[in-house]
Amino acid sequence: MKPFVIGVGVTKFGELWDISPRNLVKEAVTQALADSGITISEIDAVFVGNMLSGVLGNQENLGALYNDELGLKGVPAFKIEGACASGGLAFHNALNSILANKYKTCLVIGVEKMTDHKPEEITNALMAAAHEEERTAGLTFPGLYAILARAYCKKYKITEKDLASVSVESHYHAALNPKAQFPFKVTLKQVMESNYIADPLKLLECSPISDGAAALIVAGFDGKKMKRGVEVIASEVATDSLGLSGRNDLTTLKSTVLAAKKAYEQAKIVPSDVDVAEVHDCFSIAQVLALEDLGFFKKGTSLKEVIKGKIRLGSGAPVVNPSGGLKACGHPIGASGVKQIVEITIQLRGEAGKRQVEGAKIGLTHNVGGSGAIAIVNLLKI
Amino acid sequence: MKPFVIGVGVTKFGELWDISPRNLVKEAVTQALADSGITISEIDAVFVGNMLSGVLGNQENLGALYNDELGLKGVPAFKIEGACASGGLAFHNALNSILANKYKTCLVIGVEKMTDHKPEEITNALMAAAHEEERTAGLTFPGLYAILARAYCKKYKITEKDLASVSVESHYHAALNPKAQFPFKVTLKQVMESNYIADPLKLLECSPISDGAAALIVAGFDGKKMKRGVEVIASEVATDSLGLSGRNDLTTLKSTVLAAKKAYEQAKIVPSDVDVAEVHDCFSIAQVLALEDLGFFKKGTSLKEVIKGKIRLGSGAPVVNPSGGLKACGHPIGASGVKQIVEITIQLRGEAGKRQVEGAKIGLTHNVGGSGAIAIVNLLKI
Repeated sequence: MKPFVIGVGVTKFGELWDISPRNLVKEAVTQALADSGITISEIDAVFVGNMLSGVLGNQENLGALYNDELGLKGVPAFKIEGACASGGLAFHNALNSILANKYKTCLVIGVEKMTDHKPEEITNALMAAAHEEERTAGLTFPGLYAILARAYCKKYKITEKDLASVSVESHYHAALNPKAQFPFKVTLKQVMESNYIADPLKLLECSPISDGAAALIVAGFDGKKMKRGVEVIASEVATDSLGLSGRNDLTTLKSTVLAAKKAYEQAKIVPSDVDVAEVHDCFSIAQVLALEDLGFFKKGTSLKEVIKGKIRLGSGAPVVNPSGGLKACGHPIGASGVKQIVEITIQLRGEAGKRQVEGAKIGLTHNVGGSGAIAIVNLLKI
Repeated sequence: MKPFVIGVGVTKFGELWDISPRNLVKEAVTQALADSGITISEIDAVFVGNMLSGVLGNQENLGALYNDELGLKGVPAFKIEGACASGGLAFHNALNSILANKYKTCLVIGVEKMTDHKPEEITNALMAAAHEEERTAGLTFPGLYAILARAYCKKYKITEKDLASVSVESHYHAALNPKAQFPFKVTLKQVMESNYIADPLKLLECSPISDGAAALIVAGFDGKKMKRGVEVIASEVATDSLGLSGRNDLTTLKSTVLAAKKAYEQAKIVPSDVDVAEVHDCFSIAQVLALEDLGFFKKGTSLKEVIKGKIRLGSGAPVVNPSGGLKACGHPIGASGVKQIVEITIQLRGEAGKRQVEGAKIGLTHNVGGSGAIAIVNLLKI
């Protein structure tokens, strides 16, 4: 039994005040079903990735809710939560149920509706992903990642300007993605001149608050694969301490390193085999750590390579975050991990249009929860 | 590959103001590990069932949090939510990962901490499990189940006194369970004289607000099973409309009927083969519906049988809710579905002491989310 992604869908990401979470879900699922060519009656189980619906929307039991809305009454449904990795973890549990031969065809949904709420409500809700000692100290996620950025910049003698260069790449790609929240380029000067959010991280180095949904149809096949199916050749999860105080090295995310190591072993490939990757860049420093922890570049060297164009469409090896990433495509928490798989699937099928990575055969997705408390790495192959 | 429950643990259920959620979890997990005879280093993945930690405790990312607390840093971890069925659904996903040969040995945790909060906060938080049209109409869960009770009593000409008799049975069993929140008997007169919460449901027909945790070690074996291992012979999930307005029969929970049908087919048994069951009795009417929807008694007849002692220790066939059930053992939301499996495991091993169901070979657990939006039925065998 091998699992394949056989259909994908994603909504526009952004400030979507005129559309409800359930309608975002319907839009993404309708696309995914049409893309797969299957009918909704062929869905055996539903896995929803979401973090904030309870706290911000007073709505839990999302599995049953969306089943009801989608015409899937009766079908088993599960909500999986692991902070910003919720979408990736929902996908992982769907895969396991397929490999178990329990469900043949699964619908994976990632969704979040954030922008209807006051900034302080959103900040408080997001801090539920962190350790209470961090919350009670007044830290926020920009603050936590700023601590990582300072440790990294100090150890490897990185300037703020070098760090800021990552955002230029994300926006370069987002300008080619009509679904992106910020589909436009920014210059290094613009990033550098944007306000500090948590020194050294500036506004244009932080992913935004976003609404959006993404959906996947995942199915297991014994023999020949379905038309345009993209095979999932590895899906590996690892955890680390919830709070930064439990780690002895702030210049790496151990959860990423461990999940990536297991995934490459499982797929019997090496990092240089990856043609295209969607990595978890909630902040510029998060992308830098990912590029190195995933083995694409040596520790301390990735920004030099980024500045040389080594993750950009046309010259990247691998091309990283062609969707624009969390930074420029947007970061509706539960949707992000699912959207990454949507993007990689489209890329491997050669259907990404202006942002197509030529000849991409192997893709990677990397989704992180909290400040590195949990990470999932998926490898996909055409 | 066959999955077995090889270790169980459960804390006292009740108003546990002097113990934190993480310490409840540690207590249950320590018991489960000792019971299984394995060490914590043998755990491959963790599945946490919880509903309210985000809304009531501002803490999500519980998988990583508890891993950190338990000394399981690195190990994959997932939080599964499906309202009051969260614990059962966490178990189901652990089973699938074992059947997939992805993880060999899983730790399943169910936990909830409710009593530290104001009643109106708890009521609001719980209503996240319902449909928004029910919340905005001012309905609460006692109200929703009272609607079901009225429909059932009208259709089958059941008196309030008959309905109230279920609670007497639950408390009869709870008096034999030192972990129960209410380990004492009540008389039918006491139930009838307790205040109405939502007519016709009275205080002593409603499960309480509770704190508590439960834990299971679940492992897959190809050949001979581990010492004292209890085999999981079926685990089936089904959904229904989230709100009552989407159903055409309020005297049955279709999700239970569907999950039970699939589970019996999977295990190749019939309801009369079940020796002992833990069913989801958040209200007296919930237990009545369960007894019939699970096939133990014909529709409309279960209360007559209950009054004859047909679910009681010594004379029951099957014995139902020897733990005292949600009503009298307590209902810490995410913990309930896991505690049911703990109780059935202990019963099948013949280690339930004063509340032992003699010669029990096959056990059933039944866990419901919302007012029947989702249900899971597990079958276990010694």
